[in-house]
Amino acid sequence: MRIIRSIHGYQAWRRQHENEEIGFVPTMGALHEGHLSLIRRARKHCSKVVVSIFVNPLQFAPTEDLSRYPRPVKSDQQLCREAGIDLLFRPSHEEFYPEDFQTSVKVNRLSQRWEGEARPTHFEGVATVVTKLLCLVRPHRAFFGQKDYQQLLVIKQLVRDLNLATTIVRCPTIRESDGLALSSRNRYLSASERMQAAGVSVALRQGKQAIRLGKRQVSTIERDMKKVLGKLKGLDIEYVAVCDAHNLEPLTNAKGSIVLLAAVRLGHVRLIDNMLVKV
Amino acid sequence: MRIIRSIHGYQAWRRQHENEEIGFVPTMGALHEGHLSLIRRARKHCSKVVVSIFVNPLQFAPTEDLSRYPRPVKSDQQLCREAGIDLLFRPSHEEFYPEDFQTSVKVNRLSQRWEGEARPTHFEGVATVVTKLLCLVRPHRAFFGQKDYQQLLVIKQLVRDLNLATTIVRCPTIRESDGLALSSRNRYLSASERMQAAGVSVALRQGKQAIRLGKRQVSTIERDMKKVLGKLKGLDIEYVAVCDAHNLEPLTNAKGSIVLLAAVRLGHVRLIDNMLVKV
Repeated sequence: MRIIRSIHGYQAWRRQHENEEIGFVPTMGALHEGHLSLIRRARKHCSKVVVSIFVNPLQFAPTEDLSRYPRPVKSDQQLCREAGIDLLFRPSHEEFYPEDFQTSVKVNRLSQRWEGEARPTHFEGVATVVTKLLCLVRPHRAFFGQKDYQQLLVIKQLVRDLNLATTIVRCPTIRESDGLALSSRNRYLSASERMQAAGVSVALRQGKQAIRLGKRQVSTIERDMKKVLGKLKGLDIEYVAVCDAHNLEPLTNAKGSIVLLAAVRLGHVRLIDNMLVKV
Repeated sequence: MRIIRSIHGYQAWRRQHENEEIGFVPTMGALHEGHLSLIRRARKHCSKVVVSIFVNPLQFAPTEDLSRYPRPVKSDQQLCREAGIDLLFRPSHEEFYPEDFQTSVKVNRLSQRWEGEARPTHFEGVATVVTKLLCLVRPHRAFFGQKDYQQLLVIKQLVRDLNLATTIVRCPTIRESDGLALSSRNRYLSASERMQAAGVSVALRQGKQAIRLGKRQVSTIERDMKKVLGKLKGLDIEYVAVCDAHNLEPLTNAKGSIVLLAAVRLGHVRLIDNMLVKV
């Protein structure tokens, strides 16, 4: 595994591999089984696998957890090595966003609701860093987890809108045995919060099951999911929603391709999760 | 010369020419000698030359001249053919901006002043269409005239910020024999306006000459340029400025790489021009 830290270094490597099928897994580090599943998928489909680790300040609000976001550099490198990737790209903040950096990319409609409401500058930060990474890395395929579903839609949209030559591959959410979706932020949870956290996936699964069993009225489905979440100690609901899986507009009747979204707070930790269902 | 109208058609052509050096001249049509000089430059440096013709609605404000912008399709095609280009790309508006198109690119600081003040949404439209075109066309070099100097800086900045794999080549402004910078909008000028219009380049040349001869105080240089423009009948000055050629900040003392900018109105027609000088 090569480790490259400079943009020019990466560009030189890329030019030497023009005839390879490049798979790309962009991450903010603090790698877990979710990231490793993306890497495995990339290895299966591509002849070279590039992983980037870059904690992108643009997608954090000033009040958020940028400074305490975990950065376990050594163990991340070890995990990448064991996963058999070809190149680890770890750009420095100074080179990636030099002082005169001033371009931003925005995906207007898809960024407005849900996470966009809770975190108003978040998706502009995501869209900017992902556009920059895709233009620089020039992968044939890039692999993203379904866990951050709205992010996935934002990225698919910008790739389509800007005609980037990359296919975005959605990969399934990886869960703990009790159903909690893997996330680098799970490590912030206290033992008791960790116990409650699994309830988010329980509520979503129940909503999904209700739809599968024929329930159609979204207000009832959402109320039942909120009831499940309401029983969890110390958990505050930010939103629970049953939406069109393509454009994230809220539905009144469950029909077509549906995504169930949930965002909650457990103490200082914000958790999101989602499930897809088709009827 | 091939003419391709669909995005997929272009992408297929591009894949067949992966080993060529692609030169790209993006235009809004209404081609004149300025565009032809870009094409000649592209032919000199590249093995294949692609010209796009697309009147980009995003860069026009609702009050501006989008609908009456000239679209002489047949003569443009003829000019391209005679100029020896390899591919004319004329995407349809419907395919280029489908209904769910919602991504925008902004170059924040460079877009604020001068043209950005006069036309608040203009550079966002330019940055978005140019990012999309560069991602789609994937040229090694793209050729832009110095005539739209602020636009050129905006484009160079977004290419640097997003790490696009294209070199932006600045080409000199082409002028009529009386000094008027070529522009597709010159055809809107009445005969008497056309006579006055040459005065813009006279004022700029005089400012440039003053700097060359050792004048340093920008307020005096600007005042003298405005005096020249003030004598032109029916001409309103929008701005005349002596700026840092890299970031377009106004100078108080002429030093370093300098650009002299002018924007005027002659009847319904808005004209811009600029000249560079180093001291």
